[in-house]
Amino acid sequence: MENLNDIKAPTIVLVRPQLGENIGMCARAMLNCGVTDLRIVSPRDGWPSDSAVSASAGALDVIDNAQIFETIEDAIADLDYVIATTARLRGMTKPIFNTIESSNKIKQETVNGNKCGIMFGPERTGLENDDIYFANAVLNIPLNPNYSSLNLAQAVLLVCFSWLNSDNHFEVNHEMPELANKDDINHFVNRLESELDNSGFFKSAEQRPTTLMNLKNFFFRISPTKQEVQTLHGVVKALVAKK
Amino acid sequence: MENLNDIKAPTIVLVRPQLGENIGMCARAMLNCGVTDLRIVSPRDGWPSDSAVSASAGALDVIDNAQIFETIEDAIADLDYVIATTARLRGMTKPIFNTIESSNKIKQETVNGNKCGIMFGPERTGLENDDIYFANAVLNIPLNPNYSSLNLAQAVLLVCFSWLNSDNHFEVNHEMPELANKDDINHFVNRLESELDNSGFFKSAEQRPTTLMNLKNFFFRISPTKQEVQTLHGVVKALVAKK
Repeated sequence: MENLNDIKAPTIVLVRPQLGENIGMCARAMLNCGVTDLRIVSPRDGWPSDSAVSASAGALDVIDNAQIFETIEDAIADLDYVIATTARLRGMTKPIFNTIESSNKIKQETVNGNKCGIMFGPERTGLENDDIYFANAVLNIPLNPNYSSLNLAQAVLLVCFSWLNSDNHFEVNHEMPELANKDDINHFVNRLESELDNSGFFKSAEQRPTTLMNLKNFFFRISPTKQEVQTLHGVVKALVAKK
Repeated sequence: MENLNDIKAPTIVLVRPQLGENIGMCARAMLNCGVTDLRIVSPRDGWPSDSAVSASAGALDVIDNAQIFETIEDAIADLDYVIATTARLRGMTKPIFNTIESSNKIKQETVNGNKCGIMFGPERTGLENDDIYFANAVLNIPLNPNYSSLNLAQAVLLVCFSWLNSDNHFEVNHEMPELANKDDINHFVNRLESELDNSGFFKSAEQRPTTLMNLKNFFFRISPTKQEVQTLHGVVKALVAKK
Protein backbone atom coordinates (compact mmCIF):
# COMPACT_ATOMS: atom_id res chain seq x y z
CA MET A 1 0.00 0.00 0.00
CA GLU A 2 2.40 2.59 -1.23
CA ASN A 3 0.14 5.55 -0.50
CA LEU A 4 0.36 5.00 3.27
CA ASN A 5 3.85 6.40 3.09
CA ASP A 6 3.39 8.72 0.14
CA ILE A 7 0.69 11.01 1.39
CA LYS A 8 0.00 12.17 4.94
CA ALA A 9 -3.37 10.97 6.15
CA PRO A 10 -6.00 13.52 7.16
CA THR A 11 -6.82 14.26 10.80
CA ILE A 12 -10.12 12.82 12.04
CA VAL A 13 -12.10 15.12 14.36
CA LEU A 14 -14.95 13.54 16.34
CA VAL A 15 -17.24 16.30 17.57
CA ARG A 16 -19.07 15.58 20.87
CA PRO A 17 -19.12 11.78 20.49
CA GLN A 18 -21.31 10.10 23.06
CA LEU A 19 -20.11 6.54 23.69
CA GLY A 20 -16.50 5.59 24.39
CA GLU A 21 -17.21 2.32 22.59
CA ASN A 22 -17.93 4.22 19.38
CA ILE A 23 -14.70 6.21 19.71
CA GLY A 24 -12.81 2.93 20.05
CA MET A 25 -14.48 1.51 16.96
CA CYS A 26 -13.60 4.71 15.06
CA ALA A 27 -9.96 4.30 16.11
CA ARG A 28 -10.01 0.74 14.76
CA ALA A 29 -11.56 1.84 11.46
CA MET A 30 -8.98 4.62 11.13
CA LEU A 31 -6.01 2.34 11.73
CA ASN A 32 -7.44 -0.19 9.26
CA CYS A 33 -6.93 2.53 6.67
CA GLY A 34 -3.59 3.89 7.94
CA VAL A 35 -5.19 7.03 9.43
CA THR A 36 -3.81 7.76 12.91
CA ASP A 37 -4.36 11.39 14.02
CA LEU A 38 -7.54 11.42 16.14
CA ARG A 39 -8.89 14.55 17.84
CA ILE A 40 -11.97 14.54 20.02
CA VAL A 41 -14.08 17.57 20.90
CA SER A 42 -15.93 17.33 24.25
CA PRO A 43 -16.55 13.58 24.51
CA ARG A 44 -19.78 13.21 26.50
CA ASP A 45 -18.59 10.30 28.66
CA GLY A 46 -15.16 11.75 29.38
CA TRP A 47 -11.61 10.75 28.54
CA PRO A 48 -9.62 8.52 28.89
CA SER A 49 -12.21 5.82 28.34
CA ASP A 50 -11.90 2.12 29.19
CA SER A 51 -14.71 1.27 26.80
CA ALA A 52 -12.89 3.09 23.99
CA VAL A 53 -9.76 1.05 24.68
CA SER A 54 -11.59 -2.27 24.68
CA ALA A 55 -13.61 -1.44 21.54
CA SER A 56 -10.50 -0.32 19.67
CA ALA A 57 -9.40 -3.94 19.12
CA GLY A 58 -5.77 -3.05 19.67
CA ALA A 59 -5.70 0.25 17.77
CA LEU A 60 -3.93 1.75 20.78
CA ASP A 61 -1.58 3.91 18.72
CA VAL A 62 -4.63 5.89 17.76
CA ILE A 63 -6.39 5.85 21.15
CA ASP A 64 -3.31 6.63 23.24
CA ASN A 65 -2.33 9.56 21.02
CA ALA A 66 -5.82 11.00 20.67
CA GLN A 67 -6.03 14.68 21.63
CA ILE A 68 -8.99 16.14 23.50
CA PHE A 69 -10.29 19.67 22.93
CA GLU A 70 -13.14 21.72 24.36
CA THR A 71 -14.07 23.44 21.11
CA ILE A 72 -13.88 22.79 17.38
CA GLU A 73 -11.90 26.03 17.01
CA ASP A 74 -9.13 24.60 19.18
CA ALA A 75 -9.28 21.15 17.59
CA ILE A 76 -8.79 22.43 14.04
CA ALA A 77 -6.62 25.50 14.78
CA ASP A 78 -3.54 24.18 12.94
CA LEU A 79 -5.46 22.69 10.01
CA ASP A 80 -5.69 24.42 6.64
CA TYR A 81 -8.51 22.54 4.96
CA VAL A 82 -11.43 20.90 6.77
CA ILE A 83 -14.37 18.86 5.47
CA ALA A 84 -17.54 18.33 7.53
CA THR A 85 -19.36 15.01 7.15
CA THR A 86 -23.12 15.31 7.25
CA ALA A 87 -26.14 13.29 6.19
CA ARG A 88 -28.45 16.30 5.94
CA LEU A 89 -27.76 19.06 3.45
CA ARG A 90 -29.35 22.17 4.88
CA GLY A 91 -28.69 25.31 2.94
CA MET A 92 -25.03 25.66 3.89
CA THR A 93 -23.10 27.68 1.34
CA LYS A 94 -20.32 25.14 0.92
CA PRO A 95 -19.22 22.84 -1.86
CA ILE A 96 -20.79 19.38 -1.40
CA PHE A 97 -18.49 16.43 -2.08
CA ASN A 98 -19.12 12.71 -2.31
CA THR A 99 -16.50 10.35 -0.82
CA ILE A 100 -14.41 10.16 -3.97
CA GLU A 101 -14.40 13.92 -4.55
CA SER A 102 -13.61 14.49 -0.90
CA SER A 103 -10.70 12.04 -0.94
CA ASN A 104 -9.27 13.57 -4.09
CA LYS A 105 -9.58 17.10 -2.72
CA ILE A 106 -7.82 16.11 0.50
CA LYS A 107 -4.97 14.44 -1.37
CA GLN A 108 -4.61 17.46 -3.65
CA GLU A 109 -4.52 19.85 -0.67
CA THR A 110 -2.08 17.61 1.19
CA VAL A 111 0.25 17.47 -1.81
CA ASN A 112 0.15 21.27 -1.85
CA GLY A 113 1.43 21.30 1.73
CA ASN A 114 -1.88 21.89 3.52
CA LYS A 115 -2.95 20.03 6.66
CA CYS A 116 -6.38 18.48 6.22
CA GLY A 117 -9.08 17.22 8.55
CA ILE A 118 -12.47 15.56 8.40
CA MET A 119 -15.11 16.24 11.07
CA PHE A 120 -17.83 13.84 12.21
CA GLY A 121 -20.75 14.79 14.46
CA PRO A 122 -22.35 13.09 17.48
CA GLU A 123 -24.00 9.70 16.98
CA ARG A 124 -27.63 10.81 17.19
CA THR A 125 -27.68 14.22 15.63
CA GLY A 126 -24.64 14.62 13.41
CA LEU A 127 -22.94 17.99 13.02
CA GLU A 128 -24.98 21.14 13.65
CA ASN A 129 -24.82 24.20 11.41
CA ASP A 130 -22.78 25.88 14.16
CA ASP A 131 -20.17 23.12 13.68
CA ILE A 132 -20.25 23.00 9.90
CA TYR A 133 -19.37 26.63 9.31
CA PHE A 134 -15.78 25.92 10.36
CA ALA A 135 -15.41 23.67 7.31
CA ASN A 136 -14.35 24.44 3.76
CA ALA A 137 -16.69 21.86 2.29
CA VAL A 138 -19.32 19.30 3.18
CA LEU A 139 -19.05 15.54 2.61
CA ASN A 140 -22.24 13.62 1.97
CA ILE A 141 -21.60 9.87 1.89
CA PRO A 142 -23.53 8.44 -1.08
CA LEU A 143 -25.83 5.68 0.23
CA ASN A 144 -29.23 4.13 -0.42
CA PRO A 145 -31.49 7.20 -0.05
CA ASN A 146 -34.19 5.04 1.53
CA TYR A 147 -31.90 3.63 4.21
CA SER A 148 -28.92 5.83 4.83
CA SER A 149 -28.35 5.73 8.58
CA LEU A 150 -24.80 4.63 9.40
CA ASN A 151 -23.23 4.31 12.81
CA LEU A 152 -20.32 6.64 13.56
CA ALA A 153 -17.55 4.07 13.12
CA GLN A 154 -19.00 2.90 9.79
CA ALA A 155 -19.02 6.47 8.51
CA VAL A 156 -15.40 6.91 9.61
CA LEU A 157 -14.50 3.58 7.96
CA LEU A 158 -16.07 4.50 4.61
CA VAL A 159 -14.44 7.93 4.55
CA CYS A 160 -10.99 6.67 5.57
CA PHE A 161 -11.21 3.72 3.17
CA SER A 162 -12.15 6.04 0.32
CA TRP A 163 -9.16 8.21 1.16
CA LEU A 164 -6.82 5.19 1.28
CA ASN A 165 -8.01 3.87 -2.06
CA SER A 166 -8.40 7.10 -3.96
CA ASP A 167 -6.16 8.27 -6.75
CA ASN A 168 -2.67 9.33 -5.75
CA HIS A 169 -1.63 11.21 -8.84
CA PHE A 170 -1.69 14.88 -8.00
CA GLU A 171 0.60 17.58 -9.19
CA VAL A 172 2.22 19.84 -6.65
CA ASN A 173 1.19 23.44 -7.36
CA HIS A 174 4.37 25.36 -6.59
CA GLU A 175 2.65 28.64 -7.40
CA MET A 176 0.09 28.24 -4.63
CA PRO A 177 0.83 30.53 -1.67
CA GLU A 178 0.44 29.16 1.85
CA LEU A 179 -3.16 28.97 3.03
CA ALA A 180 -4.26 30.56 6.28
CA ASN A 181 -4.94 27.89 8.85
CA LYS A 182 -8.20 27.72 10.78
CA ASP A 183 -6.69 29.55 13.74
CA ASP A 184 -5.73 32.50 11.50
CA ILE A 185 -9.27 32.61 10.19
CA ASN A 186 -10.78 32.27 13.64
CA HIS A 187 -8.74 35.21 14.92
CA PHE A 188 -9.84 37.33 12.02
CA VAL A 189 -13.49 36.35 12.34
CA ASN A 190 -13.50 37.06 16.08
CA ARG A 191 -11.93 40.44 15.48
CA LEU A 192 -14.46 41.20 12.78
CA GLU A 193 -17.33 40.14 15.06
CA SER A 194 -16.16 42.44 17.81
CA GLU A 195 -15.68 45.37 15.45
CA LEU A 196 -19.11 44.78 13.95
CA ASP A 197 -20.64 44.78 17.42
CA ASN A 198 -18.88 48.04 18.19
CA SER A 199 -20.07 49.58 14.97
CA GLY A 200 -23.72 48.67 15.37
CA PHE A 201 -23.66 46.40 12.32
CA PHE A 202 -26.22 43.97 13.74
CA LYS A 203 -29.70 45.40 13.40
CA SER A 204 -31.28 43.27 16.14
CA ALA A 205 -30.32 40.67 18.74
CA GLU A 206 -32.58 38.12 17.01
CA GLN A 207 -30.93 38.62 13.66
CA ARG A 208 -27.37 38.65 15.01
CA PRO A 209 -26.73 34.85 15.21
CA THR A 210 -27.86 34.13 11.66
CA THR A 211 -25.98 37.04 10.13
CA LEU A 212 -22.88 36.13 12.10
CA MET A 213 -23.11 32.50 11.10
CA ASN A 214 -23.37 33.41 7.43
CA LEU A 215 -20.30 35.61 7.74
CA LYS A 216 -18.26 32.96 9.57
CA ASN A 217 -19.42 30.34 7.11
CA PHE A 218 -18.08 32.50 4.30
CA PHE A 219 -14.63 33.09 5.78
CA PHE A 220 -14.09 29.48 6.86
CA ARG A 221 -15.13 28.21 3.45
CA ILE A 222 -13.10 30.32 1.08
CA SER A 223 -9.54 29.07 1.84
CA PRO A 224 -7.84 32.47 1.91
CA THR A 225 -4.05 32.55 1.93
CA LYS A 226 -2.15 33.81 4.97
CA GLN A 227 -1.36 36.99 3.06
CA GLU A 228 -5.01 37.56 2.22
CA VAL A 229 -6.02 37.23 5.87
CA GLN A 230 -3.37 39.80 6.75
CA THR A 231 -4.85 42.10 4.12
CA LEU A 232 -8.34 41.56 5.55
CA HIS A 233 -7.05 42.55 9.00
CA GLY A 234 -5.68 45.68 7.42
CA VAL A 235 -9.02 46.40 5.78
CA VAL A 236 -10.90 46.08 9.07
CA LYS A 237 -8.34 48.18 10.88
CA ALA A 238 -8.54 50.90 8.26
CA LEU A 239 -12.33 50.94 8.20
CA VAL A 240 -12.55 51.15 11.98
CA ALA A 241 -9.96 53.92 12.17
CA LYS A 242 -11.82 55.96 9.60
CA LYS A 243 -14.98 56.25 11.62
CA MET B 1 -28.47 7.39 -6.65
CA GLU B 2 -29.34 6.42 -10.17
CA ASN B 3 -27.30 3.21 -10.15
CA LEU B 4 -29.61 1.57 -7.58
CA ASN B 5 -32.13 1.21 -10.35
CA ASP B 6 -29.75 0.89 -13.26
CA ILE B 7 -27.77 -2.16 -12.31
CA LYS B 8 -28.85 -5.20 -10.33
CA ALA B 9 -26.91 -5.53 -7.08
CA PRO B 10 -24.80 -8.63 -6.47
CA THR B 11 -25.91 -11.42 -4.14
CA ILE B 12 -24.10 -11.54 -0.80
CA VAL B 13 -23.25 -15.05 0.44
CA LEU B 14 -22.23 -15.40 4.09
CA VAL B 15 -20.49 -18.74 4.53
CA ARG B 16 -20.85 -20.36 8.00
CA PRO B 17 -21.28 -17.06 9.91
CA GLN B 18 -21.15 -17.54 13.67
CA LEU B 19 -23.13 -14.79 15.42
CA GLY B 20 -26.67 -13.76 14.50
CA GLU B 21 -25.72 -10.24 15.55
CA ASN B 22 -23.08 -10.11 12.83
CA ILE B 23 -25.56 -11.33 10.22
CA GLY B 24 -27.91 -8.53 11.28
CA MET B 25 -25.15 -5.94 10.98
CA CYS B 26 -24.28 -7.30 7.52
CA ALA B 27 -27.93 -6.90 6.49
CA ARG B 28 -27.83 -3.26 7.64
CA ALA B 29 -24.59 -2.59 5.75
CA MET B 30 -26.06 -4.20 2.62
CA LEU B 31 -29.24 -2.15 2.70
CA ASN B 32 -27.21 1.04 3.29
CA CYS B 33 -25.78 0.36 -0.15
CA GLY B 34 -28.97 -0.85 -1.85
CA VAL B 35 -27.86 -4.50 -1.83
CA THR B 36 -30.70 -6.80 -0.76
CA ASP B 37 -30.17 -10.45 -1.79
CA LEU B 38 -28.65 -12.25 1.24
CA ARG B 39 -27.86 -15.97 1.26
CA ILE B 40 -26.46 -17.75 4.30
CA VAL B 41 -24.63 -21.07 4.26
CA SER B 42 -24.91 -23.10 7.51
CA PRO B 43 -25.21 -20.32 10.11
CA ARG B 44 -23.67 -21.71 13.31
CA ASP B 45 -26.32 -20.35 15.67
CA GLY B 46 -29.29 -21.31 13.50
CA TRP B 47 -31.97 -19.39 11.64
CA PRO B 48 -34.20 -17.42 12.07
CA SER B 49 -32.26 -15.41 14.62
CA ASP B 50 -33.64 -12.83 17.05
CA SER B 51 -30.21 -11.30 17.50
CA ALA B 52 -29.89 -10.88 13.73
CA VAL B 53 -33.23 -9.06 13.65
CA SER B 54 -32.32 -6.70 16.48
CA ALA B 55 -28.84 -5.97 15.10
CA SER B 56 -30.22 -5.27 11.63
CA ALA B 57 -31.51 -1.82 12.71
CA GLY B 58 -34.64 -2.21 10.63
CA ALA B 59 -33.08 -3.80 7.56
CA LEU B 60 -35.86 -6.38 7.69
CA ASP B 61 -36.35 -6.56 3.92
CA VAL B 62 -32.93 -8.16 3.82
CA ILE B 63 -33.28 -10.34 6.93
CA ASP B 64 -36.79 -11.60 6.18
CA ASN B 65 -35.89 -12.54 2.61
CA ALA B 66 -32.54 -14.13 3.43
CA GLN B 67 -32.22 -17.68 2.09
CA ILE B 68 -30.48 -20.45 4.03
CA PHE B 69 -28.45 -23.22 2.38
CA GLU B 70 -26.48 -26.17 3.64
CA THR B 71 -23.68 -25.92 1.11
CA ILE B 72 -21.98 -23.28 -1.01
CA GLU B 73 -22.82 -25.32 -4.10
CA ASP B 74 -26.52 -24.87 -3.38
CA ALA B 75 -26.19 -21.22 -2.39
CA ILE B 76 -24.50 -20.19 -5.63
CA ALA B 77 -26.12 -22.69 -8.02
CA ASP B 78 -27.94 -20.04 -10.08
CA LEU B 79 -25.08 -17.54 -10.09
CA ASP B 80 -22.79 -17.08 -13.09
CA TYR B 81 -19.91 -15.12 -11.61
CA VAL B 82 -18.74 -15.34 -7.99
CA ILE B 83 -15.99 -13.50 -6.12
CA ALA B 84 -14.56 -14.81 -2.83
CA THR B 85 -13.45 -12.24 -0.25
CA THR B 86 -10.32 -13.21 1.63
CA ALA B 87 -7.62 -11.53 3.68
CA ARG B 88 -5.03 -14.25 3.05
CA LEU B 89 -3.79 -14.95 -0.45
CA ARG B 90 -2.65 -18.53 -0.47
CA GLY B 91 -1.59 -19.81 -3.83
CA MET B 92 -5.06 -19.99 -5.33
CA THR B 93 -4.95 -19.86 -9.11
CA LYS B 94 -7.52 -17.07 -9.40
CA PRO B 95 -7.37 -13.44 -10.47
CA ILE B 96 -6.94 -11.21 -7.40
CA PHE B 97 -9.03 -8.04 -7.39
CA ASN B 98 -9.08 -5.02 -5.12
CA THR B 99 -12.46 -3.48 -4.23
CA ILE B 100 -12.56 -1.18 -7.25
CA GLU B 101 -11.58 -3.89 -9.73
CA SER B 102 -14.06 -6.26 -8.12
CA SER B 103 -16.90 -3.72 -8.33
CA ASN B 104 -16.13 -2.93 -11.95
CA LYS B 105 -15.97 -6.61 -12.89
CA ILE B 106 -19.30 -7.30 -11.21
CA LYS B 107 -20.99 -4.39 -12.97
CA GLN B 108 -19.53 -5.51 -16.31
CA GLU B 109 -20.74 -9.08 -15.81
CA THR B 110 -24.15 -7.86 -14.65
CA VAL B 111 -24.53 -5.64 -17.71
CA ASN B 112 -23.75 -8.71 -19.82
CA GLY B 113 -26.69 -10.51 -18.21
CA ASN B 114 -24.78 -12.60 -15.69
CA LYS B 115 -25.89 -13.04 -12.06
CA CYS B 116 -23.09 -12.18 -9.66
CA GLY B 117 -22.32 -12.96 -6.05
CA ILE B 118 -19.71 -12.13 -3.41
CA MET B 119 -18.81 -14.67 -0.69
CA PHE B 120 -17.61 -13.84 2.82
CA GLY B 121 -16.21 -16.41 5.26
CA PRO B 122 -16.79 -17.02 8.98
CA GLU B 123 -15.77 -14.29 11.44
CA ARG B 124 -12.68 -15.95 12.87
CA THR B 125 -11.19 -17.85 10.00
CA GLY B 126 -12.45 -16.38 6.75
CA LEU B 127 -13.04 -18.57 3.72
CA GLU B 128 -11.12 -21.84 3.42
CA ASN B 129 -9.50 -23.02 0.20
CA ASP B 130 -12.34 -25.55 -0.09
CA ASP B 131 -14.76 -22.60 -0.23
CA ILE B 132 -12.72 -20.38 -2.51
CA TYR B 133 -12.47 -22.82 -5.38
CA PHE B 134 -16.13 -22.18 -6.22
CA ALA B 135 -15.23 -18.59 -7.09
CA ASN B 136 -14.08 -17.03 -10.35
CA ALA B 137 -11.84 -14.55 -8.60
CA VAL B 138 -10.59 -13.46 -5.20
CA LEU B 139 -11.21 -10.06 -3.61
CA ASN B 140 -8.57 -8.73 -1.25
CA ILE B 141 -9.75 -5.53 0.46
CA PRO B 142 -6.84 -3.05 0.38
CA LEU B 143 -6.12 -1.98 3.97
CA ASN B 144 -3.24 -0.98 6.23
CA PRO B 145 -1.01 -4.07 5.92
CA ASN B 146 0.01 -3.72 9.57
CA TYR B 147 -3.57 -3.65 10.85
CA SER B 148 -5.97 -5.23 8.44
CA SER B 149 -8.45 -7.15 10.59
CA LEU B 150 -12.03 -6.09 9.86
CA ASN B 151 -15.17 -7.45 11.39
CA LEU B 152 -17.57 -9.23 9.02
CA ALA B 153 -20.09 -6.39 8.72
CA GLN B 154 -17.35 -3.85 8.02
CA ALA B 155 -16.00 -6.04 5.22
CA VAL B 156 -19.50 -6.34 3.76
CA LEU B 157 -19.98 -2.57 4.10
CA LEU B 158 -16.75 -1.72 2.26
CA VAL B 159 -17.44 -4.15 -0.55
CA CYS B 160 -21.07 -3.08 -1.01
CA PHE B 161 -20.16 0.61 -0.78
CA SER B 162 -17.45 0.15 -3.41
CA TRP B 163 -19.98 -1.52 -5.65
CA LEU B 164 -22.54 1.26 -5.13
CA ASN B 165 -20.03 4.00 -5.88
CA SER B 166 -18.12 2.38 -8.71
CA ASP B 167 -18.29 3.38 -12.33
CA ASN B 168 -21.52 2.62 -14.14
CA HIS B 169 -20.41 3.03 -17.68
CA PHE B 170 -20.12 -0.42 -19.17
CA GLU B 171 -20.93 -1.50 -22.65
CA VAL B 172 -23.19 -4.47 -23.18
CA ASN B 173 -21.31 -7.16 -25.10
CA HIS B 174 -24.00 -8.52 -27.38
CA GLU B 175 -21.57 -11.06 -28.83
CA MET B 176 -20.97 -12.74 -25.48
CA PRO B 177 -22.74 -16.11 -25.25
CA GLU B 178 -24.51 -17.07 -22.03
CA LEU B 179 -22.17 -18.23 -19.27
CA ALA B 180 -22.68 -21.53 -17.52
CA ASN B 181 -23.96 -20.94 -14.01
CA LYS B 182 -22.31 -22.50 -10.99
CA ASP B 183 -24.79 -25.35 -10.93
CA ASP B 184 -23.86 -26.30 -14.52
CA ILE B 185 -20.21 -26.28 -13.55
CA ASN B 186 -20.83 -28.21 -10.37
CA HIS B 187 -22.66 -30.93 -12.29
CA PHE B 188 -19.83 -31.19 -14.75
CA VAL B 189 -17.15 -31.25 -12.06
CA ASN B 190 -18.98 -33.93 -10.09
CA ARG B 191 -19.35 -36.03 -13.21
CA LEU B 192 -15.69 -35.57 -14.02
CA GLU B 193 -14.70 -36.51 -10.45
CA SER B 194 -16.68 -39.71 -10.62
CA GLU B 195 -15.29 -40.64 -14.02
CA LEU B 196 -11.76 -39.93 -12.83
CA ASP B 197 -12.32 -42.17 -9.82
CA ASN B 198 -13.58 -44.93 -12.12
CA SER B 199 -10.61 -44.55 -14.41
CA GLY B 200 -7.95 -44.69 -11.69
CA PHE B 201 -6.81 -41.12 -12.37
CA PHE B 202 -5.90 -40.44 -8.76
CA LYS B 203 -2.57 -42.02 -7.97
CA SER B 204 -3.10 -42.16 -4.20
CA ALA B 205 -5.72 -41.36 -1.57
CA GLU B 206 -3.41 -38.75 -0.02
CA GLN B 207 -2.94 -36.92 -3.30
CA ARG B 208 -6.60 -37.08 -4.32
CA PRO B 209 -7.95 -34.04 -2.39
CA THR B 210 -5.26 -31.65 -3.65
CA THR B 211 -5.50 -32.77 -7.24
CA LEU B 212 -9.27 -32.62 -7.12
CA MET B 213 -9.23 -29.15 -5.58
CA ASN B 214 -6.90 -27.88 -8.29
CA LEU B 215 -9.21 -29.28 -10.95
CA LYS B 216 -12.36 -27.82 -9.38
CA ASN B 217 -10.58 -24.53 -8.85
CA PHE B 218 -9.82 -24.45 -12.55
CA PHE B 219 -13.35 -25.13 -13.78
CA PHE B 220 -15.02 -22.74 -11.35
CA ARG B 221 -12.60 -19.97 -12.25
CA ILE B 222 -12.65 -19.99 -16.02
CA SER B 223 -16.22 -18.77 -16.72
CA PRO B 224 -17.06 -21.24 -19.49
CA THR B 225 -20.21 -20.62 -21.53
CA LYS B 226 -23.17 -23.01 -21.28
CA GLN B 227 -22.25 -24.35 -24.72
CA GLU B 228 -18.67 -24.99 -23.65
CA VAL B 229 -19.80 -26.96 -20.62
CA GLN B 230 -22.01 -29.05 -22.91
CA THR B 231 -18.97 -29.67 -25.08
CA LEU B 232 -16.91 -30.68 -22.04
CA HIS B 233 -19.61 -33.18 -21.08
CA GLY B 234 -19.35 -34.60 -24.58
CA VAL B 235 -15.57 -34.83 -24.27
CA VAL B 236 -15.79 -36.77 -21.00
CA LYS B 237 -18.51 -39.03 -22.39
CA ALA B 238 -16.46 -39.78 -25.48
CA LEU B 239 -13.26 -40.45 -23.54
CA VAL B 240 -15.01 -42.80 -21.15
CA ALA B 241 -16.79 -44.67 -23.93
CA LYS B 242 -13.53 -45.19 -25.79
CA LYS B 243 -11.87 -47.11 -23.00
